[in-house]
This record gives sequence, C-alpha cells and structure tokens, in this order.
Amino acid sequence: MQSVKRRSQKAGLSPGTAVHVGEQKIEKVKITVIDYDQDNYEVREMQAVEQCMPYRLKPTITWINIEGLHEASKIEEVSKCFDLHPLTIEDILNTEQRPKIEFFDNYIFFVMKMLSFDEQKRTLNVEQVSLVLAENKVITFQEIGGDVFDAVRNRIKNTKANIRKVGADYLAYALMDAVVDEYFEILEKTGDIIEELEDKLLKRPSQDVLHEIHGIKRQTIFLRRAVWPLREVISGLEREGTSLIKGTTRIYLRDLHDHTVQVIDAIETFREMISGMLDIYLSSISNGMNEVMKVLTIFASIFIPMTLVSGIYGMNFNNERSPFNMPELNWYLGYPFALGLMLIIAIAMLFFFRKKRWL
Amino acid sequence: MQSVKRRSQKAGLSPGTAVHVGEQKIEKVKITVIDYDQDNYEVREMQAVEQCMPYRLKPTITWINIEGLHEASKIEEVSKCFDLHPLTIEDILNTEQRPKIEFFDNYIFFVMKMLSFDEQKRTLNVEQVSLVLAENKVITFQEIGGDVFDAVRNRIKNTKANIRKVGADYLAYALMDAVVDEYFEILEKTGDIIEELEDKLLKRPSQDVLHEIHGIKRQTIFLRRAVWPLREVISGLEREGTSLIKGTTRIYLRDLHDHTVQVIDAIETFREMISGMLDIYLSSISNGMNEVMKVLTIFASIFIPMTLVSGIYGMNFNNERSPFNMPELNWYLGYPFALGLMLIIAIAMLFFFRKKRWL
Amino acid sequence: MQSVKRRSQKAGLSPGTAVHVGEQKIEKVKITVIDYDQDNYEVREMQAVEQCMPYRLKPTITWINIEGLHEASKIEEVSKCFDLHPLTIEDILNTEQRPKIEFFDNYIFFVMKMLSFDEQKRTLNVEQVSLVLAENKVITFQEIGGDVFDAVRNRIKNTKANIRKVGADYLAYALMDAVVDEYFEILEKTGDIIEELEDKLLKRPSQDVLHEIHGIKRQTIFLRRAVWPLREVISGLEREGTSLIKGTTRIYLRDLHDHTVQVIDAIETFREMISGMLDIYLSSISNGMNEVMKVLTIFASIFIPMTLVSGIYGMNFNNERSPFNMPELNWYLGYPFALGLMLIIAIAMLFFFRKKRWL
Amino acid sequence: MQSVKRRSQKAGLSPGTAVHVGEQKIEKVKITVIDYDQDNYEVREMQAVEQCMPYRLKPTITWINIEGLHEASKIEEVSKCFDLHPLTIEDILNTEQRPKIEFFDNYIFFVMKMLSFDEQKRTLNVEQVSLVLAENKVITFQEIGGDVFDAVRNRIKNTKANIRKVGADYLAYALMDAVVDEYFEILEKTGDIIEELEDKLLKRPSQDVLHEIHGIKRQTIFLRRAVWPLREVISGLEREGTSLIKGTTRIYLRDLHDHTVQVIDAIETFREMISGMLDIYLSSISNGMNEVMKVLTIFASIFIPMTLVSGIYGMNFNNERSPFNMPELNWYLGYPFALGLMLIIAIAMLFFFRKKRWL
Amino acid sequence: MQSVKRRSQKAGLSPGTAVHVGEQKIEKVKITVIDYDQDNYEVREMQAVEQCMPYRLKPTITWINIEGLHEASKIEEVSKCFDLHPLTIEDILNTEQRPKIEFFDNYIFFVMKMLSFDEQKRTLNVEQVSLVLAENKVITFQEIGGDVFDAVRNRIKNTKANIRKVGADYLAYALMDAVVDEYFEILEKTGDIIEELEDKLLKRPSQDVLHEIHGIKRQTIFLRRAVWPLREVISGLEREGTSLIKGTTRIYLRDLHDHTVQVIDAIETFREMISGMLDIYLSSISNGMNEVMKVLTIFASIFIPMTLVSGIYGMNFNNERSPFNMPELNWYLGYPFALGLMLIIAIAMLFFFRKKRWL
Repeated sequence: MQSVKRRSQKAGLSPGTAVHVGEQKIEKVKITVIDYDQDNYEVREMQAVEQCMPYRLKPTITWINIEGLHEASKIEEVSKCFDLHPLTIEDILNTEQRPKIEFFDNYIFFVMKMLSFDEQKRTLNVEQVSLVLAENKVITFQEIGGDVFDAVRNRIKNTKANIRKVGADYLAYALMDAVVDEYFEILEKTGDIIEELEDKLLKRPSQDVLHEIHGIKRQTIFLRRAVWPLREVISGLEREGTSLIKGTTRIYLRDLHDHTVQVIDAIETFREMISGMLDIYLSSISNGMNEVMKVLTIFASIFIPMTLVSGIYGMNFNNERSPFNMPELNWYLGYPFALGLMLIIAIAMLFFFRKKRWL
Repeated sequence: MQSVKRRSQKAGLSPGTAVHVGEQKIEKVKITVIDYDQDNYEVREMQAVEQCMPYRLKPTITWINIEGLHEASKIEEVSKCFDLHPLTIEDILNTEQRPKIEFFDNYIFFVMKMLSFDEQKRTLNVEQVSLVLAENKVITFQEIGGDVFDAVRNRIKNTKANIRKVGADYLAYALMDAVVDEYFEILEKTGDIIEELEDKLLKRPSQDVLHEIHGIKRQTIFLRRAVWPLREVISGLEREGTSLIKGTTRIYLRDLHDHTVQVIDAIETFREMISGMLDIYLSSISNGMNEVMKVLTIFASIFIPMTLVSGIYGMNFNNERSPFNMPELNWYLGYPFALGLMLIIAIAMLFFFRKKRWL
Repeated sequence: MQSVKRRSQKAGLSPGTAVHVGEQKIEKVKITVIDYDQDNYEVREMQAVEQCMPYRLKPTITWINIEGLHEASKIEEVSKCFDLHPLTIEDILNTEQRPKIEFFDNYIFFVMKMLSFDEQKRTLNVEQVSLVLAENKVITFQEIGGDVFDAVRNRIKNTKANIRKVGADYLAYALMDAVVDEYFEILEKTGDIIEELEDKLLKRPSQDVLHEIHGIKRQTIFLRRAVWPLREVISGLEREGTSLIKGTTRIYLRDLHDHTVQVIDAIETFREMISGMLDIYLSSISNGMNEVMKVLTIFASIFIPMTLVSGIYGMNFNNERSPFNMPELNWYLGYPFALGLMLIIAIAMLFFFRKKRWL
Repeated sequence: MQSVKRRSQKAGLSPGTAVHVGEQKIEKVKITVIDYDQDNYEVREMQAVEQCMPYRLKPTITWINIEGLHEASKIEEVSKCFDLHPLTIEDILNTEQRPKIEFFDNYIFFVMKMLSFDEQKRTLNVEQVSLVLAENKVITFQEIGGDVFDAVRNRIKNTKANIRKVGADYLAYALMDAVVDEYFEILEKTGDIIEELEDKLLKRPSQDVLHEIHGIKRQTIFLRRAVWPLREVISGLEREGTSLIKGTTRIYLRDLHDHTVQVIDAIETFREMISGMLDIYLSSISNGMNEVMKVLTIFASIFIPMTLVSGIYGMNFNNERSPFNMPELNWYLGYPFALGLMLIIAIAMLFFFRKKRWL
Repeated sequence: MQSVKRRSQKAGLSPGTAVHVGEQKIEKVKITVIDYDQDNYEVREMQAVEQCMPYRLKPTITWINIEGLHEASKIEEVSKCFDLHPLTIEDILNTEQRPKIEFFDNYIFFVMKMLSFDEQKRTLNVEQVSLVLAENKVITFQEIGGDVFDAVRNRIKNTKANIRKVGADYLAYALMDAVVDEYFEILEKTGDIIEELEDKLLKRPSQDVLHEIHGIKRQTIFLRRAVWPLREVISGLEREGTSLIKGTTRIYLRDLHDHTVQVIDAIETFREMISGMLDIYLSSISNGMNEVMKVLTIFASIFIPMTLVSGIYGMNFNNERSPFNMPELNWYLGYPFALGLMLIIAIAMLFFFRKKRWL
C-alpha cells in the first residue's frame, strides 16, 4: 500500500517536476561508469556529474549505473546530460511506477521491479530499476546498490566474453535477464513455503495456518503485479521497429519473454494451489465441527437415558398398600435389574451409532 | 443508485434537449475566464453570457470555467456561443454520465468523474467534470467549484511556467492530470481503511467488521466504475489523429495513461485483498462456532456421566434381605467410593479430550 | 424459459416459413401509417394491407407501425409489399429473438426487447419490437401497442420539431432511443428493490429475503440478456458503412450507444451488489447459529455441574457407623453449603464465559 | 468421458488410418441416395458402393446419406469414390470429434453433434453427424438413422418447394438447420427440469435434489460442449470465401448462426440459474441446521434448570436440629412452591427466547 | 514445483550457456540415426558425435534421436554440428521449459511435454521432448528413451508406408502426433479416477476423498499447463509461412491442432466436474452435521423432560400434615401415573419431530 500513499505527496505539482517519491534507502548517491568495446575496458566512480559529459558521444559502449535516487537534483543533472525528457526524469525519481516501457526519439526507457525475498520476515522487498537504452549507452537507476548486476559486470571484464563483441542493446538485455533470473529464486522460495503450508494443513489445520496461507496469497498478488506488466514491456521491446535494437538481440529478447511467461505461469499455478488449500482448510474446519458434534451426541444420547433410569428408581412413591408402589424397589434383584437396564440402553445406543457409522 | 434514478426523469424528451439531470449543489452559476499567452495573463468573472463572445476567435489561450450546472439555459447559451452540438450540451447537463470521449469536427468533448473522500461519513463524493477542448480554448463544466484546479491556476499565473509556453491541449492535459492526482489520495485513504479493517478482523471479527468490509468493497466498485472508462478516454485522446492535440502533448498523455493504469492496478489489488478478508471473516466465524461446540461437548461429556453416578446412588432400592440391595450404600467407604468414581470419570474424559487435542 | 419452449414448435418447418411463434397478446392487428415531411403530416389507420402500396415509393418519410403479430398472413403481406426477405418475415413473427441486426441490400432490420416492470407481480414483462429501416421508410412491429412510442409521435406532430427536418434514419434512432430510455426506468426500480432488500437483510435476514434476492438476481440476468446484444446492434449500425444512415445521425447513435453502455454498467454494478448481499446473508446465518450455540453452551455448562451437586447430596449412603457416610448431610450448615457450592459454580462459569467474551 | 476412452484405442496408428472409433449402434450400414433437380426426383437405396460412381459427375443435386459407421471399409470406399482426404475419412469414422469445419480444395467437411433427450433415463444421447459439401453433392454420415432429416426429405419430395430450386449448399444448410432445431427441444426439456427442481428445492431441499441439480448441471456442460464449437463452424462457413456457398445461402447461414447464439445464450442462462439453485440449497441446509439447534437450545435451556430445582429438593440433608436443614421441605406449601419455581423458570426462559425471536 | 527450483541454479550465467538443468534420468546418452528415403532405410547407433557430420547435407531424410540430456558437452557438439543457435542449445538442456515454438532462419525449434501416468503412485510423470526441424532433418532430444516413438519407427521401416514418401516435415508431425496421442491415454485414466471418486463421494464422503479430489485437481492443473501452450505451438507451425512445412503437411497439422483442442476441451470438462464434486463434498459435510444435530436434539428433547418428571417425584417434601405434600406419592396408582406421564411426554415429542419431518 506504500505505493499508493507516497505517490499522493506529489499531487498538485506540475507534471515533469523532478521530485523523489519513495523512501531514502541508502546514504549517498553513487555513480559508476563502465566504458568498453571489444578491446578496451574502463571502470570509474564519478565524483561530479560533469564527468558524464565526455561519454555523451563516445563510440564505445558506456554503462552508467546510478545507485540511490534521493538526491533529485543530481539525478536530474545526469539525465539532462543525456537529453532525457522531463517526464522520464519524473518517472525515474518516482519509485512507485508499474513496470512500463516508453519509446522516445533517441532512447528507450523502461522500468522494472527487482524483487528479493527477506528470509527472516518472510516478505518480499521491492526495488525499482529504471533503464535507459540510447545509442551506445545504457543508463541504469537503482534505489539501492544490489549485487544482481555483479554477474553482468564480471562478464564484461572478461575480454573474450560475447558481451564485449555486441552492442548496448545486448547489455540492456543482459541486465533485464539478470532481474528476471532473480524472480526464479523468489518462485523457488514461494514454492517451498507453499509445500510447507500444505504439510501443516494436513497435520493440524489452525487459524494460524490460514493466516500464513493468506500471507503467501498476498505475496503472489504482489509478485504478479511486478511480473505481468513486464511481459508487455519485453514484448514491446521485441516487436517495436526501433533501430536501437538489433535483430540478433531480438532473438535473446524472445527468450527473455519466454522466461517471463514461465514465471507468470508458475505464479498462476501457485494461485490455483493456494485457492485449493483454502478449500481444504475450510472443509477441515467443517469436518472438525462434525467430529465435535458427534462426540457430544454420542455422549449425551448414551448417558441421558441411563440417567432417566436412575432418576425413576430414585422416586419416592410410598403408598405401601399399593401393588404399583414401585415394586422393583423390593425385588430381590432390583438393583442389578436397574443397572442391567442401563447397560442394555448403553449397548443399544452404541449399536445404533455403529450402524450410523459414527463410531 | 442515484445515477439511475435521476436519469429516468428525462425519458420521453427529444434527444439533445437541454435539461439539467442531477441535484443542484451550489447556489449560483459562476463563469470565470482565464485568458493568457506567453506574455499576457487576464482573469475575469463573467456577469453575462454575452461576455464570452470576444473570446470566440482570440488567438490567445482561453480557459472558461463554469461552476454549477443547474441553470440549463445559461449553460446552453455559453455552449452555443462556442458551437457545441446539442448532444454535447445535453451530456454536460446530465451529471450521470460515464467518463467518455467524443470527437466532433471542431472540438473534443470528454467527461470525467472528480472524486473526493468524505472523512466523516467515510463515503465517496462524486462530481462530474466535463471538458471541451477546441482550437485555443478549453471550457470546463463543474458541478461545484472545487479547489482541485487551483494548482493549475497558480501555475498559469507564473509567467515563467512551462504551461504558458504551450497550447490549449497541454492545459486540458494539466486539468485531467489534476483530477487523476486526486484519485491517488482516495486510494491512499482506501488503503488505510483496509489496513485498519484487517487489524480489526484479526483482533475481533464481528458482524460490524463484515459490514465495514462490504462498505469498502462497494466503494471500490464505484471507484472502479469511475476510473476504468477514463483509461479508454485517455488512450482515445492519445491515439486519435486529431490536430487539436500536438505531438509534444501526446507524451504527457501517455504518462497520464500510465497513471490511470496504476490507479486501476491498485483498485484490483484492493479487490483481491478485500475478497481475502471476506474469506478470513467467514472462516473465523466457523472457527468460533467450533470453539463454542468444543466447550459444550467437554462440559456435557464430563458432567453427564458424573451425574449418572450420583443418580444411581440416589435410587431407593430397599429390599433389605437382598444382598444385591445396593450394597455400596452400606460400605464403610461407600461415599468416597462414589466421589472417586466420579473423579475417575472426569479425569478419563479430560485425557480423552486432551488426546483429541481439544484442550 | 418460455422463449425456449415456444421456439421448438417450429422445428421441422422450412426456414423462412411465416409462422407466429409466441402468444397472442392483443385482439386485433392494427396498422397505423404516419407520413410526413417538413411541411406535411398525415396519420391513418389502415384497414387493408393493400393501402400500403401508395407509400412504397413516396419521397416523404413514412412510418408504418404494426401492433399485434398473431395474424401471420397479414404481417407477411405487409412485409412483401416492402420487399422484405422471407427470413426477415420469419424473424418478425418469432417473438423469441435475441436483439440482433441484419443488413440487407435495400434495408436494415433490427430486433429489440422493450421491457416494462409489472409493479404488482414484481416481474419484468418483455415485448419484442422489430424495426425495418428502408429508404424514407421505417416499419415497426410490436406485440402489443404500448405507449413508449407516443412521445415520438407527439414530436412528429409538432411542425417545428427537429425530427420533421431530418430523415428516416433519425426516426429509427428516435424510436430506439425511446426503448432505451425505458430501460433506465427499469434500472431505477431494480435499484429501489435492491436498497429495500439491503435494509431487510440488515434488520432481519430470513429465508424469504434470500428468495427475494434470488428473484432480483434472476431479473438482472434477463435484463442483461436483453441489453448486452443491443449494444452490438447499435455499434453495428453506427459503424457499418451503409447509405441508409447519414453522418449527422451517426452522432446520435454514438450517444445512444453510450446510454446502452451506461445501462450495462449499472446492471453489472447491481450484480456485484447482489452477490455481496448473498455473502452477507450466508454469513448472517452462520452468525445466527453461533449465537444459538452460545446460548445452549452457556446454559448447559452452568446448570449441568449444579445438577451434579444436587445429585451428589441426593445419594442414599446410609452406613451410619462410617465417618465417611456423607457427613455434609449432617452439618449444621449443610444445605446452605450445597447451595453455595452451586452458586460458586454458576459464578465461576459466568466469569469463564465473560473472559471468553461470549457474554 | 466415453469420448476420451475410446479415442485412445487408436494411439500409435498412422494418421489417416480408417478405423471406426466408437460403439456400433445399428446392425447394418445403409446407404441412401436422393438425386434431384427442379424437375426430377429419385430415391434409391444402394446395395453396393460402386453404385455411387454414376453420381460423381452428375449435374443434378445428389444427397448421399450413410447410416451406420462400423464398417470402416465401406465408408472408406464411398469416401474415396468422392475423393475425400484420408484425414476426412478418419474423422468421419471417429465418432468422438468436436464439432469442427475443414475446408479442402474441392469440398467442405464439417462435424456436428445431434442431441436427443432420453425421457426415461433423463440423459442426453449424442450422435455424431458428418457432412461433406462438394460441387452439387452433399454426403452425410450418421451413426444411427434418425428421423431428424425426415422433414428435409419431405420438403425435397415436394416439387414446388424452394429447396428444389436452389443448390447443394442450401441442402447442407437445411440439414444443419434441422440439427440445430433439435437443440431447442433439448433446451425446452432442460428448462422444464430446472423449473421442476426449483419447485422441489423450495418445498423440501434434500441431498437428492442436490444430486439432481448436479445431474442437470453436468448435462448443460455437455450441451455446451456440443454447441459452442458449432457456432464457430457456422460462422466459418458464413465468412469463408468459398465458391461452394452462394451469396443467397449465406443469408440463411447468418440466420442459423443467430439460432446457435440463441441456444448458447439459453445455456448460459441455465448455468446461472443452476448456480443460483446451488446457493439456495446450501443456504437452506444452513437454515435447517439453525432450526435444529434452536429446538435443542430451547428444550435444554428450559428443562435443565427445572431439573436442577427438582434435584435440589431431592437432596437428603437431615440434621434435624439445624434451622437450615432444607426448611422448604417442611413448609406447608413446599411442594407447590417447588413446582411454581419450575414454572417460573420455564416461563422466564420462554420470554427470553421470544425476545430473541427464536419462537 | 521442481520446475521452479532447478531453474534458479542457472541464475547469473550468461544467456546461451550450455548447462543441463534438471535431474539425470538415464545412465548414458544414446544417439540413434535413422536415415531413409522412399527406397533406402538405415538405422545406426552413433558412438561419437563426429559421426553426425555425413548427415549434414545428405538429401535423404535423417532423424537423429538423442536420449539423455545430462552430458551438456555432447548435446552441444551435436547441436553445433547442425548450426543450432546457442539459445536453442540452452533451451534443449533446460528441461523446465514451457511448450514453445521458435522460428530460426534455417530451422524450427519446438518443445513439448511428454506425459505418462504412474499407475502406482497415481501421479503424472513429465518428460521434455525438444524437436528441431531443418531441411530434410529432424533432431529429437528426449530425457529418457521412451517407447512413444516406437510406432513411428515401425512405420518408417515399412517400405510401403506413406511416411516414406513424404518429407521431414511429415516426420516431425508424426512424432508430435505420437506425443498428443499419449495425452488421450492420460485423459482416459484421469476420467476413470474421477468416476471412481464420484462413486466414493456418493457412498461415503470423507476427508480422504477430499484429498483425492484435490490430488486429481492438481493433476489437471499440470496437464493443462502442458497442453495449453502446445495448442499455440501447433497453430504457430500451421500458420507461419515457412518453406520447411509443405502444404500437404499443413492439413495434418490442422488435424493435430483439432486433437489438442479436444484434449483441452476434455480437461476443462474435468475441471468443471471436479469443481462440482467439491460442491457436493462440502454440502455432504453440512448435511452430515445436520443429521448429527438432529439425533442429538431428538434424544435430548425426549429424555430431558422425562428426567425432570423423575426428578420431581424424587423430591423429599415431608410435611405430613400438609395436603400439598406431594400427594401423588401416596396415590394408589402414583407410580404408573408417573411412568405414564413420561410416556406421554415421549410420545408428544415424537409427534412434534415427526411433524417437523425430522423422523
């Protein structure tokens, strides 16, 4: 719900105003530049935004990674340096976007959600990643510096890697691929939790299990919200006839699209499984109640008639001249007769319930 | 349901008849004109409708804002002054429209719903806003004079603002943006109420909570009704090849479209959460009943057999010559034996229920 | 279900056979002709079908209205007089059609459902209206002569009315508009009933309320069946590039289309509200049962242990030499002690239930 | 489920192998030829497949009807005589097809399901009808010889009938129309059963009614499975630009398409009604349980306290010197007092339950 | 859930890296080549991957079947020998794909799921089959060597078989057809289990039956996941204008498409039936509880009042001078009167419950 709350802070401002919407997650904005082509490779951390300028028109591939979005002015400067539209800057700074893609004349802008699973709290952390793909340039904006992109950085370092031979569009693809690969890890953990809950459900269904089921259900809702629009983003990239994406990269995008579809497919399966678990939970409550009722019914139906017998022979009729004056009380076997009567009642009831298959 | 009721007042009238459908919300119709270009800026409140005439063909950008729709004739005069089609006038006066867009030869007409949240009654207030975008002209029709458009007015006052440099299409966009920004506030409040209800539900589920959940559910139904068609309105504006919308403004409309999608997304998430809450509520009722039944069963199953024992030793068998004449009554430890028997029964039952995990 | 039953009467007949399917609703078929242009206006009731002939090629606008469909031969004659296709004639006579539109070379044929609400039985009456729009001609076929079209007749009488200046396509539109306007009245009444049922549901949910809810649910199913296909009929009319519909009329059709969408929108909202009411009903039953169970449990749990105490002191142990021979019976305060014991049990139970918040 | 079972017999065979899949329903394969044009009419039953040969290129319209599909070789011979594709032959022999349409170079092949209602078992019988429409030729393959096509045969006999004047495409249409007309009869019977079940449900909801509701639900599932794909078959025929279907026949196909939509519409309405009945059934069970619980609660709550009173005065306190020694027992009006106490308790409870509206 | 787990092993690797994802199912990778044309036929098992080379450009039809995917390097060599794209190799090795199709310049790649039913565990086994169709070449990759393709191998051996006369595209079709034919067997078994469960449900609904129903429900979810995307794969093949598929084969693909639709249709029917069974299960629990409650209520309501009577005449009122001192105790017929009173109560209660139709 945070997404909704913070967004409203901006109401009333002119569209395209550079204001950071979201919470500050790290201390300092950090800008790293990786510049490479097939033969050269250079990494630097930038101290001042002006240092971006030389990379504007360089023919080598430049990846500028910005970590931390809370200093709106810095982000704005970097963005202006690469001629980004004010709305793009606004979107980058607003961390409550849906995954989306926008095509501008000289660049493509897209927003993704990077997810990570907090093992302890068993909740999903969501971080927004914005990516700008321009001629020979990729600019990424992250809320926190994660290690998801490290694998890509390592591939770039390797002089012989395929990534060194291909263009900025492939770099953008590789970064997206890294984000989507993370989703599979989330799915794995979600799958584990679901299996664990299924076991609990079979052993001892309780209100707590219900709340856990609802927790995981809500998690899949959020997961779905992050992945569904991404599918359209990728198929947008794949289909749109832009010169920024080369044919060879399109094949990789198609593959990435398939991965996203696979993630969505798994989420939908999870949803069906969760809904099945809710059904089982509800019916196990009803079954439990049935069980309780049967115990009560059996006890009451056996003992109440027996109590009646004891009550009858506890009556005080005392007209001693009457032959109807509770003759049983004077019988030689009166007491065993009464106990026997009770026993017969009890056995009859047990037979009755056995016939009804309640025992 | 009001929407339905009032609409039927008009049945039988010729289409295009100017009749106000809806309740009168303010006392007097108020017409304000803001006329500006990059260098000039003028605001006036109009006393007579004829004062509109000079603005008909002025090359500056003119925003005519009408507050209050109950004087059908006045609205009709203003509308005719700017050559609006009779059906447009009818639609403006009928405050029970769905958000919609209509393209005419010389203008674009669209209807939106302005929502506000009544903190006290916890209900949504809906106000209809109609907007006509013509060459250099924007005419807005509101039921009540709200302060939603104030932010736009202030931006226009500022000589250096971007809005002063661009056309009437951008003004129309800015007004729509202001309306959509309001939706985020509603979403925030709805989100708060949902969280509050979730807490209540966990602490003490009651019939009242159910009614509150249904109240908020109904609210999201209405919210959805207002926003879903708006999405089509905006994407209609964005795509339609009309000369009234410039390319630069289209980028902003795309952004607005994204906002609407974000609102819809949040509403759908709310709906799923509410439906999950209903599930929890229903299962907590069943759980509660289970609890009640268990208490009854435990009490009855423990005390009824004990009562039988007491009943047995309360019987009056008195054939004193018989050795079966309730010998226990004469035992030295008869009474402790009876009490002990009861105690054993009670303990056995407790073990039984413990084994069943009911205790 | 009538629709299904009567339709099967025709099985086995050659397609295009003119047979009336449906019940006879009025006594006599009545044919009225209204012929007008901007200057002339003439109304006549026709006695013989041949009287239609002069209107075949007249350049003025002719509206032929037929009330009552049970005389198949008469309908067939009229239809043939205006060159209608045998399948059209069959469709006109079969009053169990779905709303639909068919384009023929020289005319457009469409079927609508006219609905009216029977206040007493609280049911919907459905009447089929077929409309043929040909060059300068509109032919309408009604099952009963209703007063829905009276408003249109009155507008035509008025020399200055817009309808006198425009063509047959506008007349067709005006008639459709009259039918759709009727739907708003139905919606209003349905809305009233739903609100009434909601009140009943909150005050005293009973099986009767459930049946009423299901009654209104069924009604919305039928309403929806009548309106959904109509939307496609109207958008078909609006889009199809036929010369029978002029551009100026298309704007009106677009407006009518909006009205239909508004009706559908309201029906869908009703459906969601009804489904919410069913949820509330079901949970209120469960709540009621919970309540009943609590009363039982509280009574049983308080009185059964008290009864045990009374049972114990009603036992007849009588070995007078034993010190364990129910000494309480001889205590000076024995009786008050027993009563006190019961009271303590009762109070303890009340505290227990209070703690459980059942009281 | 039969459809699934028998189909698997064929697994592993080469596609296009002529094997009959399904049960043998009649004893002998019967081949009838009806050959006609506007002036001539001839019917013959064929003894040998070779008798087909003369009809191959005859310019008159030939309808070959084959009843019984169990002699695969015979069917194969006939089919080859008219140059049918091996896959078509396979499809004809496999009686577990979905309704479908296939366009080949020289013919159109389509499969339909002929349904009939078995009054006694209250189940649907399904028979597959395959139809091949070639130049001047219609070949129909039926599992059993039904009387559905008799009406068409009679129309052909009649020299003046329209069907004699038009082509083979109209004949194919007429046969399809006969099949669809049968569906209306099924719908009528289904509607009757639903109404009957609704009555039963209101009078005395029982587990049996539930099973009947589920039986009819399953029937609508099968009905739907037969009709839904047929709609696409017909609209395929209507739209496909094949020379085998003439423009005049297309109008009839459009009409047939409307009928299918009407059938589907009715099925969907049935489904909604059935789902409403299930809701009513479930809530009536809950209501019934509520009722039972109330009776129990009322009885227990009235009699258990009364029993306590009787238990108290059955205690044996006997310290005769104590003034607290159950003085009531010695009261002059002790017994009436005790009875009165019980009566007061009973009346109080009755008032309590009356106030709770349980009585 | 396995699919999700194992996939995440690869996170961080460069796309197109050849790594086997999945479990090793057989011991040794086995490569078989079948090379044939209308006149020649040759089968060999390959020992070294280089043996593939001669088949690269041979004009005869070559089917290379690889069983076992765990030796990534071997698979990679074979694939490179036939110029497959690195992404294709990655997809072949990743056994957790969704069915999909990809068109490359010189070949078509598609993935299917081969299903088999494990009779003992009553679970579905899933094996992935990848198929590459190139000019005159079909390469299949299986996880285990199954016998599903044996029927195709036998058809190829037969010199006169149709398959010998047609191209590689028909071979690919034949293999797909063999996979789809297997689905019908699964459907048959699923159908049997569903029928069995329905019987169990009617005879004795228990929590076990519920778990079995949920097991079969989950199975249909997985079945659906395997078949739904296959439909798109096949219709992709059928429509795509590639020269690798000849027109004559397209007719067979259309037929295969129909089979897939039939499988999907059956799955959807199963789902509806399973959902109906869950409804029946839930309502049978409620009915059972109703039954239990009735027994309890009847017993308690009959015996508790009788016990009260016995309790009353067990009271000890003993003021012998009072005429109200329980005179019944001294009546000549006191005891029979008391017993009679109880009997009357019992009979009255039985009548009451009979009237309520609980007996």
